[in-house]
Amino acid sequence: MDLDAKKQALGGISYGLYVIGTTNGDDVNAFAGNWLTQTSFDPPLVVLGAKRGSTTQDMIASGGVFVVNVLESGQGDLAAKFFKPAIRVGNKLGDVAFRTEKTGAPILEDALRWFECRVVDRIERGDHWIYVGEVVNAGVHRAGDPLTLNETDWNYGG
Amino acid sequence: MDLDAKKQALGGISYGLYVIGTTNGDDVNAFAGNWLTQTSFDPPLVVLGAKRGSTTQDMIASGGVFVVNVLESGQGDLAAKFFKPAIRVGNKLGDVAFRTEKTGAPILEDALRWFECRVVDRIERGDHWIYVGEVVNAGVHRAGDPLTLNETDWNYGG
Repeated sequence: MDLDAKKQALGGISYGLYVIGTTNGDDVNAFAGNWLTQTSFDPPLVVLGAKRGSTTQDMIASGGVFVVNVLESGQGDLAAKFFKPAIRVGNKLGDVAFRTEKTGAPILEDALRWFECRVVDRIERGDHWIYVGEVVNAGVHRAGDPLTLNETDWNYGG
Repeated sequence: MDLDAKKQALGGISYGLYVIGTTNGDDVNAFAGNWLTQTSFDPPLVVLGAKRGSTTQDMIASGGVFVVNVLESGQGDLAAKFFKPAIRVGNKLGDVAFRTEKTGAPILEDALRWFECRVVDRIERGDHWIYVGEVVNAGVHRAGDPLTLNETDWNYGG
């Protein structure tokens, strides 16, 4: 296989950029991620790729839930705050305010929209693990267009 | 759960729009799909959601391979030709020329880039099945920006 072609071809997949919130009941965390797709309407399912051995992946594994915070176009800087795990201080992750609802995973107050998932399946394959989440709660904070990975200077894939 | 909020929140996931080619060894087919994400760098893995009971899903199940044709920005009309299964005539699907390489799945000559996958895992859950494909071959036809679902009039998700 031509590895440069493989990198370019996989780089042709289009993504958003989300803040994925996690909890194991005792603590909360969040990371910026883009490997996400819906895979079913009924029941509503999504697949998330989370880096093997990372803090947040461990928390998804132990807590069995996650929330996808859909950011708004222009909020790339907010996403960037979650490229490394954020420290929780009260009801903030770093300087970003959050609240919790059904699963306990952190919903960012400044997110555009969000949905919470319970993990219903997992495939331990590759350098990221594949989580299947069933959507159990969702909300819309305001009208607006979602942030795409394209509009940022970042990339993850290939 | 607020079903309208669920629909809007899931509709906030950003996608490309691809032509997914399939073969079972005897025949080839293709459909336009957007439920796709990478899930691993090494080995290179992707996850694809394919509608349960559809012709092309059955072909992925029996053939164990698929190819993702990444289209170019502006090629929405080419994608639309694959909203319904195409009839094969010689080396064309409908009026769209293709060739085959490693897996036998149809690579569209007009695609921007493409990658072929062998199915290494499957989760039968929901109204679409979840296929994990390992990338085994890839190519780049020309320079250009990938087609996003956003730039088309279509939507699939929510």
